[in-house]
Amino acid sequence: MSINLFPAKAVQGELIKYSQIGNKQFKIFTKAGDVVDIDALANKGLKYKANPFLDELKGNHVRVGLLFLNPSMRTRMSTQVAGRNLGMDVIVFNIDKEGWQLEFGDGVVMNGNKAEHIKEAAPVLGSYFDILGIRTFPSLQNRAEDYSESYISEFIKYCGVPVVSLESATRHPLQSLTDIITMKESLAQQPITPGKKLKIVHTWAPHIKPCPQAVSNSFCEWVNAWGKADFVVANPEGMDLAEEFTKGATVTHNQEEALEGADFVYVKNWSSYDWKGEYGKNYDAPDASSWLLTLDKLKNTNNAKVMHCLPVRRGVELTDEVLDSDHSLITTEAGNRVWAAQAVLSELL
Amino acid sequence: MSINLFPAKAVQGELIKYSQIGNKQFKIFTKAGDVVDIDALANKGLKYKANPFLDELKGNHVRVGLLFLNPSMRTRMSTQVAGRNLGMDVIVFNIDKEGWQLEFGDGVVMNGNKAEHIKEAAPVLGSYFDILGIRTFPSLQNRAEDYSESYISEFIKYCGVPVVSLESATRHPLQSLTDIITMKESLAQQPITPGKKLKIVHTWAPHIKPCPQAVSNSFCEWVNAWGKADFVVANPEGMDLAEEFTKGATVTHNQEEALEGADFVYVKNWSSYDWKGEYGKNYDAPDASSWLLTLDKLKNTNNAKVMHCLPVRRGVELTDEVLDSDHSLITTEAGNRVWAAQAVLSELL
Amino acid sequence: MSINLFPAKAVQGELIKYSQIGNKQFKIFTKAGDVVDIDALANKGLKYKANPFLDELKGNHVRVGLLFLNPSMRTRMSTQVAGRNLGMDVIVFNIDKEGWQLEFGDGVVMNGNKAEHIKEAAPVLGSYFDILGIRTFPSLQNRAEDYSESYISEFIKYCGVPVVSLESATRHPLQSLTDIITMKESLAQQPITPGKKLKIVHTWAPHIKPCPQAVSNSFCEWVNAWGKADFVVANPEGMDLAEEFTKGATVTHNQEEALEGADFVYVKNWSSYDWKGEYGKNYDAPDASSWLLTLDKLKNTNNAKVMHCLPVRRGVELTDEVLDSDHSLITTEAGNRVWAAQAVLSELL
Repeated sequence: MSINLFPAKAVQGELIKYSQIGNKQFKIFTKAGDVVDIDALANKGLKYKANPFLDELKGNHVRVGLLFLNPSMRTRMSTQVAGRNLGMDVIVFNIDKEGWQLEFGDGVVMNGNKAEHIKEAAPVLGSYFDILGIRTFPSLQNRAEDYSESYISEFIKYCGVPVVSLESATRHPLQSLTDIITMKESLAQQPITPGKKLKIVHTWAPHIKPCPQAVSNSFCEWVNAWGKADFVVANPEGMDLAEEFTKGATVTHNQEEALEGADFVYVKNWSSYDWKGEYGKNYDAPDASSWLLTLDKLKNTNNAKVMHCLPVRRGVELTDEVLDSDHSLITTEAGNRVWAAQAVLSELL
Repeated sequence: MSINLFPAKAVQGELIKYSQIGNKQFKIFTKAGDVVDIDALANKGLKYKANPFLDELKGNHVRVGLLFLNPSMRTRMSTQVAGRNLGMDVIVFNIDKEGWQLEFGDGVVMNGNKAEHIKEAAPVLGSYFDILGIRTFPSLQNRAEDYSESYISEFIKYCGVPVVSLESATRHPLQSLTDIITMKESLAQQPITPGKKLKIVHTWAPHIKPCPQAVSNSFCEWVNAWGKADFVVANPEGMDLAEEFTKGATVTHNQEEALEGADFVYVKNWSSYDWKGEYGKNYDAPDASSWLLTLDKLKNTNNAKVMHCLPVRRGVELTDEVLDSDHSLITTEAGNRVWAAQAVLSELL
Repeated sequence: MSINLFPAKAVQGELIKYSQIGNKQFKIFTKAGDVVDIDALANKGLKYKANPFLDELKGNHVRVGLLFLNPSMRTRMSTQVAGRNLGMDVIVFNIDKEGWQLEFGDGVVMNGNKAEHIKEAAPVLGSYFDILGIRTFPSLQNRAEDYSESYISEFIKYCGVPVVSLESATRHPLQSLTDIITMKESLAQQPITPGKKLKIVHTWAPHIKPCPQAVSNSFCEWVNAWGKADFVVANPEGMDLAEEFTKGATVTHNQEEALEGADFVYVKNWSSYDWKGEYGKNYDAPDASSWLLTLDKLKNTNNAKVMHCLPVRRGVELTDEVLDSDHSLITTEAGNRVWAAQAVLSELL
């Protein structure tokens, strides 16, 4: 496999940084800023795609625990497979289905429905496993609380081992690494015209209920940090994502203009960060459905590839005709989740 | 272990056929017709029973995903063990408990409670796994829909890898292979009188609620395809199974006559295929309980062995006295699920 | 690691006894009486803590099935890790979430909501696995039924393979072995004054709802059987545990007196065995909250270490100040669950 575009710089040593957690240092993977070199980490993923069992002895004796406070299909299974490819044991635990609800608050008198505090659960899990993954979703009720990322932060603070985010309240870094991998792979197979600057568009899509902003926040954060493209985010007025994530991108409310000349169009619904002063609302203004991406709209692009993190609601977020066309990279993208997880687990060791 | 009855023909090559799926060819295991030689495949299962770790390196690097849209105990655990015996990694996913509901319809606008389409889910899973298993139950609401087997067919169509049915709307092939294995094993241990033709009876049993026809359909299909016995199906009038499955068997509504001289009696409830024009109804006519198999009725048989796929409701489908007698092969039969699954997984590679 | 206190006698042979089950003999681990030498078994756990992969090939080809009729976090994950450390395959099955409810009664006509009888389920599981673990909780409705331990007994009777209790109606032996391990480890690190007799106190704690007596019963049973300490059980009047478990300990209703000079204080709520003639009630008399263990109360001890089996409700069973102090061994204790399970699984082989 030749990755002839954007070759990674030669990187000495680790691709994921050590973080200072209390009085210890260990690696965590929760955001773009935890990565030393995004392009090199994506290349590592592509290397594993070409040879899944390259490091199959590396994870011998390593136990990975994957904790889900919310449902998961791709993340769970791709990370299990990734860990096994490295020779690790991977144990999945759906906390609230198989166990009980966790309390995250400080000083709370636990006389309600939460049976265990993160201060106990996290260090115990840290003693059973060498690497922990955790998935938590936002409440979409309280922006300050969601954006404080207190759940995953408390978990990291108390568990004492390397942590990989399996999606948190405001970010989904394994998805974003997958997305970079997928774009690099596509570009290696179908390079764009020499001299043309790569253009990536993230466009909002309609949905039937409020979705987290995590995938979109992370996609923006990672594409900006990657730094290889003109990057445009298109969404209805009032539906802008938080500036800390979009900073560096062009934010527009005109989808048609945004799509012009695009090489990749990343489609995803998100609920409001601050629409009419409200957080976590589904944008349901009369023009919402006009944001649905159609084959017709793609004519205006540079024969763009279409991406989406899945699950996708056909006929709501994307049309059948787009999903079933050659524009779609979506199932390839989801398949690449394995290689992103494998690159990250390998680096966390 | 000597299997001195019905020795399998020497079979060159594969015991499971390749199927044409779209523009690809791969093996699937969903029905008797997918098998080249049922007797040889059963022997393969018995070979694994004698030596579970015979092929323990064969499945190295092979990932099997088992997807349950409906609950399972034996199928899940026996298939996990079977895969592990072959050195495979086996990952279980209870889709609607751990994930979300799947849409199978074409062109549906997905604005309801189904979050993902099989057109996305199947190929993604196919990219994570080398072999996929799937369990889906019938609705028992719509016969045409159930008998179209659209769920498992769509799954096979889109996933792109070998598929093993863990029970579908109208068939349960791993159970039927187990049943053949169990009868062969029993006959090897206690051969019937030389010259007597083997007689197998499938008799309907009462139940408290409507059950799928899958186990019974498959049992009929497999015993007919196996072709080693006189085969009689006994059930109340109006409760005949679909002819496509019973064709080749004698169907009777007289249980006593059916049992006469039987060597194996397979007991199972099924709901109506077309009782008084209705599909999926529990037969609750006044004579229903008269179909309960008792020790007394077995006197009329050739000291028959009794089989059932489990779970069985004691006192409803079968009496305690039969279940706790030497007539019962039922827990042995359930134990043999491992060897059926192991033979199939080994052939799907 | 030097365990310089209470060295185990040199033990020849097995540390877990064979039990006569029907006409077979196999090892089970359900209570202190199943152990030949508790101190030696605890040492075996500590040996594994020092070298988790000491016996990593011992469990090759061994399949362990862990069946949960009730939720679990630590027990499930620590036993999975323990089995993997020994090279075993460990398969978890949450019976009522992934399967269906089991019937345990004899001669019951199964026309209710229980789909399968233990007489079928247990031997089938016994044919899939080499070792089985099972967790069942008490009803707390019917003392005679709970204390008959009929669920786990029936399971053992019918499954035909070695069984490890993952907590039953009235006992939690893996927890108690963990507790002995934890005290030995603590004493090895911080020996008590030569000549002082070790003092262990088990004190009742408030809770918001009725809890099983299993952890407390077992702790009493094991500390008594261990026989290395003065052992005092302190609880409100009327809340005494069953005498069969406390026999050998001093039972008092004065917590202050009990704590005097204590080296270990084991804190846990339990519901009534026979409070005002009632079973399974949460003690909610006005003085209940006065039993909350505080830092202040610990001044009266020999700088005691505090233990609890988790999950613990902060502010209800134990104060934040105790849990977050150096007195607490609680997360270390929970971590030690792995080594207890590993010692037991290793001996069950």
